[in-house]
Amino acid sequence: MTTRYLLGLDVGGSSIKYQLAMITDDDRPVVVKQDTLATPASDPVAAFADIARDIAGDDLAGVVIAIPGLVDSDTGTVLRSVNLPHLDGVHLGARLGDILEVPVDIVNDGRAAAIAEARWGAGDGHSDVFTLALGTGIAGCHVVNGSVAAGAHGIAGELGHIVVEPDGELCACGQRGCLETVIGAPALRRGWHAAGGEGSPRDLLIAYENGDARALPIVDRAGRSLGDALLTLLALVDPGCVVIGGGLASAPHRLVQLAVAHVDKKKTFHTVPPIVAAELGRWAGAVGCVGIAVDRMARTVTA
Amino acid sequence: MTTRYLLGLDVGGSSIKYQLAMITDDDRPVVVKQDTLATPASDPVAAFADIARDIAGDDLAGVVIAIPGLVDSDTGTVLRSVNLPHLDGVHLGARLGDILEVPVDIVNDGRAAAIAEARWGAGDGHSDVFTLALGTGIAGCHVVNGSVAAGAHGIAGELGHIVVEPDGELCACGQRGCLETVIGAPALRRGWHAAGGEGSPRDLLIAYENGDARALPIVDRAGRSLGDALLTLLALVDPGCVVIGGGLASAPHRLVQLAVAHVDKKKTFHTVPPIVAAELGRWAGAVGCVGIAVDRMARTVTA
Repeated sequence: MTTRYLLGLDVGGSSIKYQLAMITDDDRPVVVKQDTLATPASDPVAAFADIARDIAGDDLAGVVIAIPGLVDSDTGTVLRSVNLPHLDGVHLGARLGDILEVPVDIVNDGRAAAIAEARWGAGDGHSDVFTLALGTGIAGCHVVNGSVAAGAHGIAGELGHIVVEPDGELCACGQRGCLETVIGAPALRRGWHAAGGEGSPRDLLIAYENGDARALPIVDRAGRSLGDALLTLLALVDPGCVVIGGGLASAPHRLVQLAVAHVDKKKTFHTVPPIVAAELGRWAGAVGCVGIAVDRMARTVTA
Repeated sequence: MTTRYLLGLDVGGSSIKYQLAMITDDDRPVVVKQDTLATPASDPVAAFADIARDIAGDDLAGVVIAIPGLVDSDTGTVLRSVNLPHLDGVHLGARLGDILEVPVDIVNDGRAAAIAEARWGAGDGHSDVFTLALGTGIAGCHVVNGSVAAGAHGIAGELGHIVVEPDGELCACGQRGCLETVIGAPALRRGWHAAGGEGSPRDLLIAYENGDARALPIVDRAGRSLGDALLTLLALVDPGCVVIGGGLASAPHRLVQLAVAHVDKKKTFHTVPPIVAAELGRWAGAVGCVGIAVDRMARTVTA
């Protein structure tokens, strides 16, 4: 029997992270290649086909592509991607599948990363995991039994847009006092600069670690707000594990530690699950793609 | 073939509501009896057995009992019931099953009612329904594909205990500003009496309808708070339908109407699903029991 491969491509605005997995005789995937490429600037369908053939040769069994933006996974269509506008409206799954003659699935990159963290990263061992990525925005994703519980209209998990400060600052979404208006990277940067600080939210967190009095109220407020949002999450969703990643959660973990301390202080009837740091880092998206490809192969073989 | 029957008992502190369904040749249940009995004061296992035999005779195929309190449905045990303290710790399912020689399942009454409303009541036609019962407490229940999504520790859906007024009134749960501290029946009663009103929260809602200026700020605040909680629900859970029932939602529907108006005014990225009144009223629990009994029979036959 020929060795067969599954390819996961996590496509960003400037670079693609990929993982290639070999399918062994017992159907277990083993990652054999992992690398970063430049994102093609134009003609993405032909370019992705070339990339897939270059990486995997002729023995490809399936491809999963993670896209930063809104996708329709049922039809394999990219609906809207701010960072990859030349893909908007492209039936990427079907067109690439026709060229490569293998199944090609299209998924949202955040969901691919969430599935990866929940199943093979920090959530491993839990069947009900809520993942949270802290960055410019706050992306939440509820992964139950390895699949995303996306809600009836695909928008479940928007922890960044629950209100933590009624009549607070205006959010990009139009509401006031969303969690993002307190702990989103732009909000932290604004608060830090207004207090006389310089640099990024990361610099703010480092200043906090160093006892900078200007950083104190900003980071304390952020920790409390994240904690309040987590309490709402525990009351409404009751996950078995919360995995927190993204740029703002790494290195100085203090923001998450402050939030967890706030949860422990304010919890009443809640059951506080393990609240842990994400483990897969920047490769989570590619790992998730390979995992989804393995699932798809298993379903196809069974069906 | 003998005609067989399934019995659903919704047990309250003072009365039991029951439905008896006949299983037809094509396995469709048809309700043939529905009535109310007094709850036995002692020796509940023997009393429930007598009740079941009296209602169904010897052709019983299964029983489901809904209990107001904490139950372990896996083992059929009543863990704690404030209104039925003589059932605390009783292995009701196994003991009654031994006597009646049919499967006996024990469920929480709120969940039975939620399943009924989601599947055969106001949520009929939606696969993802959040039910809300407004009364002394606020019971939320997320029903997905006909089953309760109870969370990792069985406490999901606690919309009554998400904070809508930070630093608000102290809640029985120990937090401050939970939704229950604003729209729970005791909170509405307290507010109404403090404003010089008399009677129950229902009287408060009637006074509001009649333009009583004392009722205005209390009910408006309650409507806004329920609306804020619903916005959080839409962001985090994204249900396909919200069904609102319970004493405070019926008759003067104004509280729910005010909440929906608030949601429509404040929503941004949210997809607002149908928010509708519960339909099954006080029989929802018994209907849910019969439905769960039908499910159990289908599983047993298939297995």
